[in-house]
Amino acid sequence: METIKYLLDEANMPTAWYNLAADFTEPLPPVLHPGTGQPIGPDDLAPLFGMELIKQEVSTERWIEIPDEVNQILRQWRCTPLYRARRLEKALDTPAKIYYKYEGVSPSGSHKPNTAVPQAYYKMKEGVKKISTETGAGQWGSSLALACQFFGLECLVYMVKVSFNQKPYRRAMMETFGARCIASPSDTTQSGRAILADDPDCSGSLGIAISEAVEVAAQNEDTKYCLGSVLNHVLLHQTVIGLEAQKQLEMAGDYPDVIVGCTGGGSNFAGIAFPYMGEMIRDGKKIRIVAVEPAACPTLTKGPLKYDFGDTGHLTPLVKMNTLGSSFVPPGFHSGGLRYHGMAPMVSHAMKLGLFEATSYNQLETFAAGVQFAKAEGIIPAPEANHAVVGAIREAERCKEEGTEKTILFNLCGHGHFDMQAYIDYNAGKLIDYEYPDEEVAMALAGLPSFGNQ
Amino acid sequence: METIKYLLDEANMPTAWYNLAADFTEPLPPVLHPGTGQPIGPDDLAPLFGMELIKQEVSTERWIEIPDEVNQILRQWRCTPLYRARRLEKALDTPAKIYYKYEGVSPSGSHKPNTAVPQAYYKMKEGVKKISTETGAGQWGSSLALACQFFGLECLVYMVKVSFNQKPYRRAMMETFGARCIASPSDTTQSGRAILADDPDCSGSLGIAISEAVEVAAQNEDTKYCLGSVLNHVLLHQTVIGLEAQKQLEMAGDYPDVIVGCTGGGSNFAGIAFPYMGEMIRDGKKIRIVAVEPAACPTLTKGPLKYDFGDTGHLTPLVKMNTLGSSFVPPGFHSGGLRYHGMAPMVSHAMKLGLFEATSYNQLETFAAGVQFAKAEGIIPAPEANHAVVGAIREAERCKEEGTEKTILFNLCGHGHFDMQAYIDYNAGKLIDYEYPDEEVAMALAGLPSFGNQ
Repeated sequence: METIKYLLDEANMPTAWYNLAADFTEPLPPVLHPGTGQPIGPDDLAPLFGMELIKQEVSTERWIEIPDEVNQILRQWRCTPLYRARRLEKALDTPAKIYYKYEGVSPSGSHKPNTAVPQAYYKMKEGVKKISTETGAGQWGSSLALACQFFGLECLVYMVKVSFNQKPYRRAMMETFGARCIASPSDTTQSGRAILADDPDCSGSLGIAISEAVEVAAQNEDTKYCLGSVLNHVLLHQTVIGLEAQKQLEMAGDYPDVIVGCTGGGSNFAGIAFPYMGEMIRDGKKIRIVAVEPAACPTLTKGPLKYDFGDTGHLTPLVKMNTLGSSFVPPGFHSGGLRYHGMAPMVSHAMKLGLFEATSYNQLETFAAGVQFAKAEGIIPAPEANHAVVGAIREAERCKEEGTEKTILFNLCGHGHFDMQAYIDYNAGKLIDYEYPDEEVAMALAGLPSFGNQ
Repeated sequence: METIKYLLDEANMPTAWYNLAADFTEPLPPVLHPGTGQPIGPDDLAPLFGMELIKQEVSTERWIEIPDEVNQILRQWRCTPLYRARRLEKALDTPAKIYYKYEGVSPSGSHKPNTAVPQAYYKMKEGVKKISTETGAGQWGSSLALACQFFGLECLVYMVKVSFNQKPYRRAMMETFGARCIASPSDTTQSGRAILADDPDCSGSLGIAISEAVEVAAQNEDTKYCLGSVLNHVLLHQTVIGLEAQKQLEMAGDYPDVIVGCTGGGSNFAGIAFPYMGEMIRDGKKIRIVAVEPAACPTLTKGPLKYDFGDTGHLTPLVKMNTLGSSFVPPGFHSGGLRYHGMAPMVSHAMKLGLFEATSYNQLETFAAGVQFAKAEGIIPAPEANHAVVGAIREAERCKEEGTEKTILFNLCGHGHFDMQAYIDYNAGKLIDYEYPDEEVAMALAGLPSFGNQ
C-alpha cells in the first residue's frame, strides 16, 4: 500500500506557538491611535482583549508556550492529517507531489478552533464572563461558540447578514453550542443602526460585524472581544498547522517547493506558511509561497499597504496593512470568510519583505477546482478552501507543462458541509463571477485616514 | 494532560474482517425463495450482487482478508479515533468511564464508507459498470456515490422521499460525487409506480426504495445492486470498527462492561459489537451489549423473529429477522437511517442467542441527549447516533446511582452536519414524538409470508 496519511505522535506535537515577529528582518509598523496618530501600547488594547492576549500581540519572542489546558482540548482533533493527494495527482497526470494539511477534522470543521480555544481560555483565566465576536461564513463564530461552551463563557456572535441567510445550519451549530447569533448589521448597536439608516438592505460585511461586536465589548464591563483572524496573536495560534506540517512532511521524506494557502484575514495562510517563512529567514531555505484570494476582494493583489481601520465603523485602532478601504463592502460571493477589506498586518508585512507572492481567482474557477478535488479525494472543501485548491492545482498543472517534479503543500482549511447550497447553486449554473468593483474601492481608498499615510 | 484519543499505528490495523457466523453456536437460518419456500444458494443471489460478495454473504470462515486496494482507500480516515469522553463524564458527574468510537471522520461523515468501498471494489473487479441502491438519510447513498467515483462506476441512488426533501445538502453531496439521486417512490420503476398509484403523497421508506433499486438492477444487464445494511457481508465489512476499538481500548488499559450502538438495519451496531460477541462466545467474556432503536420503529423490542421480505415490493428473498412487517411504512421521524421495518438476520440471530439486549427511546429524548453530548464533546451527532448517545448516557447515570465504575463503549456512527434542520426544529420545539403505530404494525405482521413462518 502507498502511504497517504501522516500523523504525529504525542512526543512530536508542538508545545509552543511560533512567532514570526521574532524573525522579521524589519520590525512590524506600530499600531496607531485613530484620534492622535500616536503609537499605542498594550495598556490601550488590554481593556478590549485582556492582557494575556495583548502580551502575545506585541511579543517578539520566537516561541510562546501552549498552556496544557489548551492542548488538552486541541488534542481532540490534532494532530490533523497531512495527506498525500495521490488520486488527485493521478487525475491531473502531474509529476508533482501534492500534499494537503486537512483542518476540516476539527469539531466545527475548520482551522478556527486553533485560536478560539486559547482565546476563550485566556479570557476565562482573567475572569471574563461574556465574549462578543463577529463571523463571516460562520466558521469562526461556531468555533468560538464551541470554545466558550468548553470554558463556561457566554458567547454573542454578530454574523454577516448575507451568510446568516445563506447558512442557517451554521447558526444552528452555534446555537446548539449555546451561543446567541445576531444578523449584522443589526439594530442592537449604534454602528449597526447607522449602517441600516444609510442602507436598510445592507448585506453586511466582516468590517461592519466587527464594529458591532467591538461596540458591545467596549460598552459592557463583563464583556470582552475576540477576533477570528487578522491580529498577531490569532496568527500565532494558527502556527500549530505549519509546525505539525513541517514534521509530517519530514516523516514523508519531503520538503515543499511550493506552499499554497487562501487568504481572507490571513490566519489559515499564516498558520501553514509562517513556520516555513521562519526557516526561509533563519536558514535561507527557498520556498515559493503563494497566497490565493478572491478576485472580487483582492486585498493583496490590488490593495495598497496603508494605515487603515480594521472595521467599517472606525472603532478600532489603525494598523498598517494591505487594504481595499475600510468602508468597502465586498460583493456577496460565497466565500464569506474571505470577504474582508484588509489583511493581517503580519501577512502584509511579510509580503512587503518579499516572503511570498499573491494571486487571485474568480468564484467559478475556484468551485470547478473544488469539485475536481472532491471527486478525486472525497472531501468537499469549504468555498474559502477552494481558493487554495485551485492554486495548488494550477501549480501542479504547471509542473506537468514544465516536466518538473515539485512538492506542493497546501492548506485545506475546512470542509464544505455547511456550504452545500453554494455547490447546489454552482451545479445549477446559478453562481456568477463578480466584477472587481474598481470605483467602490477607489472611493473607499480615498477615504483612508491621514495618520501614517502621509 | 489526560489522554482522550487513541489511534492505532499501521502495524495494528485490521487486515481481515471478522465473521461472527464462524462463532455462532447455532447456524443462521437459511434464506428462502419467496415462490417455493426452499432454501436458496449463492447462484441464485449472485446475479443481483456479484459472486465475490455472495461468497462473503454465505461464508462461515472466521476471518476474510481485506484487499489492499480497499485498505488503501479506508486508510484515508481509518483508524477512526476512540475517544474518552472526559468532559461528558464530568458533566454527568458519573464514576463510569465513557469511550466512544467516532465514525464521523469518514469523508461522507458516517460508518457507511467502510462497506461502500469494498462493495464498489468487488463490483468493479467483476466488470460491473453501474450500481443501483437506496438510501434513507443519505449517509449510505453519499458513501456509495463516493466509492463509485473512486472506482469509476456509475451510481444511481433511490432516496426515501421524506429525506430527499429534508436533506437537499445530502443530495448535493451525492451529485458532487457524480451520482444520480431520485426521490422514492418514483415513477421510474414498476414498484414505485404501484406505490404512487395507491398513495400519491407517500413519503417513502427504505423498504420501498430497496424495491426500486433492486428492480433496476434486475432489469439491466450492466447494473448490479448494493445494500447499505442488513446483509451479512455488509455487517462483515463494518467489523473494522470493533476490531480497531478492541485494540484501542487495550491501549487505554480498559475493557468494556457495556457496549451501546443504535440499530436501524443493524450494520453500525454489528460493526462495534460483533468482534466483542465473538470474544463472549469463544472466551466466555461477559459484556452487556445494548442495541438502541427508535420507539417509533421498534423492530427488536416489538417485532417478532419471522421470515419476511427485505423490501416493500416483495422482490427480495425471504430472510429470518425481527420485523415489523415489510408493508409497514415507519412514521417520518428524523433518524432516516433507522426507518427500516426489519433487522439484519445476523443481528436478529444474535439476539435470539442471548448475545445482547435491546431498548428503545423516543425522538425528543434522543435529541436532548445529542445536544447534551454536543455541548460536552463538541461533536453534533447524527440523529441516528443520538440513539446510541442516549443509551450510553443512561448507562452512565445508572452507574452514578449505583456507585459503580463501569467502562462504557459506544459507537458514534456519524456527525449531524447534514441534519441541522432536525436540530433547528428540535430547538424551536417543533419536533414531536411519534406514537408506536400498533394497528399498522399488526396489519403488516398479519401479511407476513407463510413460508418459514408456520
